[in-house]
Amino acid sequence: MTDAADLADRVQDGDLRLYELEEHADHETAATARRLLVERETGADLSAVGQYAFDAADADANIENAIGGAQLPMGVVGPVEVDGGAAAGEYYLPLATTEGALLASVNRGLSAIRSAGGAQARVTKNGMTRAPVFRVQGIVEAKAVVEWVEENVDRLREAAESTTNHGELLDVEPYVVGDSVYLRFAYDTKDAMGMNMATIATGEACELVEDETPADLVALSGNLCSDKKPAAINAVQGRGRSVTADVELDRELVEERLGTTPEAIEEANTRKNLVGSAKAGSLGFNAHAANVVAAAFLATGQDAAQVVEGSNAITTIEERGDSLYASVSIASLEVGTVGGGTKLPTQAEALDVLGVRGGGDPAGSNADELAEIIAVGALAGELSLLAALASRHLSSAHEDLGR
Amino acid sequence: MTDAADLADRVQDGDLRLYELEEHADHETAATARRLLVERETGADLSAVGQYAFDAADADANIENAIGGAQLPMGVVGPVEVDGGAAAGEYYLPLATTEGALLASVNRGLSAIRSAGGAQARVTKNGMTRAPVFRVQGIVEAKAVVEWVEENVDRLREAAESTTNHGELLDVEPYVVGDSVYLRFAYDTKDAMGMNMATIATGEACELVEDETPADLVALSGNLCSDKKPAAINAVQGRGRSVTADVELDRELVEERLGTTPEAIEEANTRKNLVGSAKAGSLGFNAHAANVVAAAFLATGQDAAQVVEGSNAITTIEERGDSLYASVSIASLEVGTVGGGTKLPTQAEALDVLGVRGGGDPAGSNADELAEIIAVGALAGELSLLAALASRHLSSAHEDLGR
Amino acid sequence: MTDAADLADRVQDGDLRLYELEEHADHETAATARRLLVERETGADLSAVGQYAFDAADADANIENAIGGAQLPMGVVGPVEVDGGAAAGEYYLPLATTEGALLASVNRGLSAIRSAGGAQARVTKNGMTRAPVFRVQGIVEAKAVVEWVEENVDRLREAAESTTNHGELLDVEPYVVGDSVYLRFAYDTKDAMGMNMATIATGEACELVEDETPADLVALSGNLCSDKKPAAINAVQGRGRSVTADVELDRELVEERLGTTPEAIEEANTRKNLVGSAKAGSLGFNAHAANVVAAAFLATGQDAAQVVEGSNAITTIEERGDSLYASVSIASLEVGTVGGGTKLPTQAEALDVLGVRGGGDPAGSNADELAEIIAVGALAGELSLLAALASRHLSSAHEDLGR
Amino acid sequence: MTDAADLADRVQDGDLRLYELEEHADHETAATARRLLVERETGADLSAVGQYAFDAADADANIENAIGGAQLPMGVVGPVEVDGGAAAGEYYLPLATTEGALLASVNRGLSAIRSAGGAQARVTKNGMTRAPVFRVQGIVEAKAVVEWVEENVDRLREAAESTTNHGELLDVEPYVVGDSVYLRFAYDTKDAMGMNMATIATGEACELVEDETPADLVALSGNLCSDKKPAAINAVQGRGRSVTADVELDRELVEERLGTTPEAIEEANTRKNLVGSAKAGSLGFNAHAANVVAAAFLATGQDAAQVVEGSNAITTIEERGDSLYASVSIASLEVGTVGGGTKLPTQAEALDVLGVRGGGDPAGSNADELAEIIAVGALAGELSLLAALASRHLSSAHEDLGR
Repeated sequence: MTDAADLADRVQDGDLRLYELEEHADHETAATARRLLVERETGADLSAVGQYAFDAADADANIENAIGGAQLPMGVVGPVEVDGGAAAGEYYLPLATTEGALLASVNRGLSAIRSAGGAQARVTKNGMTRAPVFRVQGIVEAKAVVEWVEENVDRLREAAESTTNHGELLDVEPYVVGDSVYLRFAYDTKDAMGMNMATIATGEACELVEDETPADLVALSGNLCSDKKPAAINAVQGRGRSVTADVELDRELVEERLGTTPEAIEEANTRKNLVGSAKAGSLGFNAHAANVVAAAFLATGQDAAQVVEGSNAITTIEERGDSLYASVSIASLEVGTVGGGTKLPTQAEALDVLGVRGGGDPAGSNADELAEIIAVGALAGELSLLAALASRHLSSAHEDLGR
Repeated sequence: MTDAADLADRVQDGDLRLYELEEHADHETAATARRLLVERETGADLSAVGQYAFDAADADANIENAIGGAQLPMGVVGPVEVDGGAAAGEYYLPLATTEGALLASVNRGLSAIRSAGGAQARVTKNGMTRAPVFRVQGIVEAKAVVEWVEENVDRLREAAESTTNHGELLDVEPYVVGDSVYLRFAYDTKDAMGMNMATIATGEACELVEDETPADLVALSGNLCSDKKPAAINAVQGRGRSVTADVELDRELVEERLGTTPEAIEEANTRKNLVGSAKAGSLGFNAHAANVVAAAFLATGQDAAQVVEGSNAITTIEERGDSLYASVSIASLEVGTVGGGTKLPTQAEALDVLGVRGGGDPAGSNADELAEIIAVGALAGELSLLAALASRHLSSAHEDLGR
Repeated sequence: MTDAADLADRVQDGDLRLYELEEHADHETAATARRLLVERETGADLSAVGQYAFDAADADANIENAIGGAQLPMGVVGPVEVDGGAAAGEYYLPLATTEGALLASVNRGLSAIRSAGGAQARVTKNGMTRAPVFRVQGIVEAKAVVEWVEENVDRLREAAESTTNHGELLDVEPYVVGDSVYLRFAYDTKDAMGMNMATIATGEACELVEDETPADLVALSGNLCSDKKPAAINAVQGRGRSVTADVELDRELVEERLGTTPEAIEEANTRKNLVGSAKAGSLGFNAHAANVVAAAFLATGQDAAQVVEGSNAITTIEERGDSLYASVSIASLEVGTVGGGTKLPTQAEALDVLGVRGGGDPAGSNADELAEIIAVGALAGELSLLAALASRHLSSAHEDLGR
Repeated sequence: MTDAADLADRVQDGDLRLYELEEHADHETAATARRLLVERETGADLSAVGQYAFDAADADANIENAIGGAQLPMGVVGPVEVDGGAAAGEYYLPLATTEGALLASVNRGLSAIRSAGGAQARVTKNGMTRAPVFRVQGIVEAKAVVEWVEENVDRLREAAESTTNHGELLDVEPYVVGDSVYLRFAYDTKDAMGMNMATIATGEACELVEDETPADLVALSGNLCSDKKPAAINAVQGRGRSVTADVELDRELVEERLGTTPEAIEEANTRKNLVGSAKAGSLGFNAHAANVVAAAFLATGQDAAQVVEGSNAITTIEERGDSLYASVSIASLEVGTVGGGTKLPTQAEALDVLGVRGGGDPAGSNADELAEIIAVGALAGELSLLAALASRHLSSAHEDLGR
């Protein structure tokens, strides 16, 4: 600890910079020194932050200027049977959140789904995208660049794929706005979420574009990707996995387990998730899909900022006479089971609970499976919340009748 | 531990349900039992999940079916001087993430801001919203309900505020779609993020609406709120805090510290954040504001699913001759310094680092301060990423000249 | 004609400019000269364009560089009974279009509505907006300007209203993005569509803002108005009239007159207008409301480019057991019965058919009435097209059974 | 006239229906009879409506329940040199509108463009779309249908193209939302706007889908087309022609002809068209492109309701040292030179003025040419309005200095 105090002193003396500590001590000591420094400067006590259960050196790829760990409660919901394209069998889903009642709600939904024999799920589209923007002289040059790109997709693929062992270039879609040309590259990144893979591969392809055309790269991301922004292009075209989960519940099941009727749930969905979202100018036609996406992302080491795209979900409810059909379609769920935060201890354990840690066989199947299970979790959350809204209304309707 | 094993057995025997364990044991034991059960059922090892550093009983309001904790690396960036409406002085900003290079990038931006004497920040609007949807017979009745609401805002306020010690009803905005009436209630929830407060207060106001008009409540949230969905209504009208941070950097500072020019950063911002986002049909005209929002939210106990709304940000860059003006305006940043996840140990410590734990004086000032600091962090992230994009291009431009 | 030929010669000789002809001849002659010139230059025959039935001098306020008239077929649909806030009684609706089958379709819908005893309609909101953008130094100044505006609404109203005999300032809503401040002024412009009135009044108010605050006007329209652009702000907050029309049709009526069932129409609406539009990232949740808006606009002298905002409509369909409820809510229908193209002969006659030419009593009631009737026309169009889609499906379903 | 009066009597007596008159008289008489009837019923005088200059029988494909014609003033702007993919040479552009100052404004812009040697224009994408929606049992079936579609594009093409002599199926893009499958068919419809061609061809393809898969057609249009609605799918992916026009103007030209500076125009564009539209949640990042689109559509016989999609335009302005670069990119401009309203007399003449009436050689080139010229007109309108805003500001700035 002496060493840490000494490092903290040196930072305070202006002798060292806060980010240089790992050059002078091991990762634990560096983090301790930073806590000391921040405690001195702010008066805060950072003892809980210091009680992290991972090896600071192992987190080196995940953070800079480390001071320790943030701890969120983790719980588990399920089990639930999933009939998926990749998922098969029963799953417990670990969720990390600080929002009380969320797991109880999802669990109630899963319980109803379980009683119905489980949910179906399918990944219907897959592609991680990166869209650089190039400067050209004007529309004449833009058109020429687009034509070159369309005629040279094979060369672009060769360049892009030269940077990766696993990734495959699926598509390059050009967009033109005046003297800017955007090329949206889409990759199959297998079990990796793939943002880095897509970026590096696209960087290589951009060099080819710059070499062979008059286009000049302005930014490797031109926001048509679109990463961590609420964008229609993702909601319409998808990004990462497009995945749907659905279930059909008997009327009695709805009434007994969810305390309401198919008609009431359908009405709540129509007025709230469809018409309400329409009036709000929304890209999310659901009740709270982001809650489940966020909690599953935090538990399993996904990128929390990509909850943004994970909220591009449409929930549909259909009364089918003796049953209720419910579905959630998430357009752009960006998940991986390798890389990023998936190697950290609690995250790796959570992936193990789902049986999807590491690369799948075939490649990509673990990430597909994870996407399908999260979609089922989101479906459960939708069912449960819509039922709660509908039944509260029903009960108040009953009270009305009693008056 | 015997006790936990016994509980796990009873769950496996169908004797107990997974969520009932806290009725038969203390919270730690219940969580241990669930880990045991999940380990048996899935073969996963949950030892890291079991090494959490908070009191399970204290997290009872944050999670159900607890099995332990998720741990993410936390680091710190800064210090940076903030001239805010509520913020004043130097701040270290704690961030929790698993995305490598994020803190380094933000820190580089903050360093440039620091050299410029710090950033300005202001909360320009504040209001947590909840928008129930009511069923009416048709447009004639809808119009009558809207008129009643407009004439009875005081009574609605009285009803709503009867449920809260702190919250104040700011506004009720009616929206009509056919036979659905949506009322968007906006509250000043002071230092609380306020979703629960707004929901409870609105529930009380809804009873008054139902008593006095022919409208029937269908759902307490009709998605015009709009919580955890990417919706234009939030990007346009705001939700939680609307907050802007900005800074003016000397040209030399840009060149020396960011390795590029004001012109190049402006161009990258225009082609990427403005035109690119426009073409993407986006509500987020920024580079990666959600990254900073997410990392700050995780560190300080905010609701991770509300990163969705936090991504409704517009970044502007303006070359001003001898300087560069940069700003980030986040339309709907939903933060609190009381309630939710803010009481958990690592989160409380992170708030202490910022000096904003608990209720502010005056009420609301701590949450304002937190919003302003996060906005400054997002500004730093934008500057840093835009500069990286711009300088990479510049360097390749230099290579071009060398050919 | 000699005179016209002479003028055409002089333009060809470079002696006169094309737009200067009215300075040298009467309006008819000037138009004739331009036709001659264009005929010579392009080889086109403009005889039909020359057969216009209005006085060229009267159209001087509507066009420059006149060459004659464009003629579109006009037809009429109805009659239909409307129970509106301003509308009352039976109406024939004149429509001008070149799209075959449109009037037949709308007429079929109106016929069904007529059989149901007519439609209800209400204007639920009214306000023509203009939103200038100001440059400020940064967020600190922006906040000060916003505060000044909020404290000086009365002075802004006085300034704005000094420019108009009829218009009333309803509201000024400030929006801040970095160093830009947008003020969205909303006016009750009575029976005028009001864009000019709002622009002039806002211009006056802007001078006050510039005089009293450090803000500099950059553009009198900052696109938060938002005129003739497809913008969420209009779909959410409304512009011009927000108007809803609805009707309840007996099941037998649906079956006999529309050849389908309430269930089938509801399903078509849900999958197409709600879920399909959701997936399309749309601000228009309807089948073809713009068709009726456009045809009514052309017939009655409205601004054709404002069809853009008129397409911000949500159609809802609800099977109610023995009946079908249908509604169309147009968020931003910008109409006037004075000014603009309303004085031209065929347009004035079309307004006379509706009984809404000129200023209403009370002021604004004619424009309200026009808005309500157009909404009923749009409702008829929606019903008819949805029924056609649904019944085609039904008939093919019947064929399926026959196989 | 006796005959018409007699027909009108019979309608009033309930003996005939308003739409049946063409079965009992020629088209002129039928229209006259309807005018009589409407005059009697409403007291309106329809003499101007009766003075139309086309043959009522010829308009039979364009209207039902005809009463005559709507007449709008038509003017002409230009000439302007266009260097296009299809357009080449000088053009006068006919515009029909009732909005005073519009032609003067566009003409001022064109005059500046002309001084700069003309504008460039290119169609960068072309495809008219129709997207039916099918009902399936759930996601498992949806996935199977999508796979069948992807494997049977050739059969779908064969079916679709069997209905048309000219159209070519370019692409079929599937979208899944729960138990709804949307297939977006895109066609090259050559010189026709092509909505009807696309609908008929898609109808045939739908039969194949229904025959070969479990999918049931619910609606031939599922709103992912998306016709006459303000939808991101069109703004992002395009519909009809995606077309860009641009120009580079010398600084002196800007100063002398537009009375302002490149810097001032760029600032107005950034704060208004980019940032303002961003804050408005808009799909239209332009000043008033819809004005030119609408006026050109009315003059040349296009579908006025498709002005909606024509407003999906992005304007960019770039100060380039000694010059100003300006561009307008319209994502979804739906135009044709055959069919629809293009055969009507004034419309045909207007197309002749442009030299694009009827089918082009090669097929499609006339519609491309029309699209390019309209884009140049829109560019002129943008330049002119932005310059007016910028110079008004400059002049007031000058006044400020004079104080």
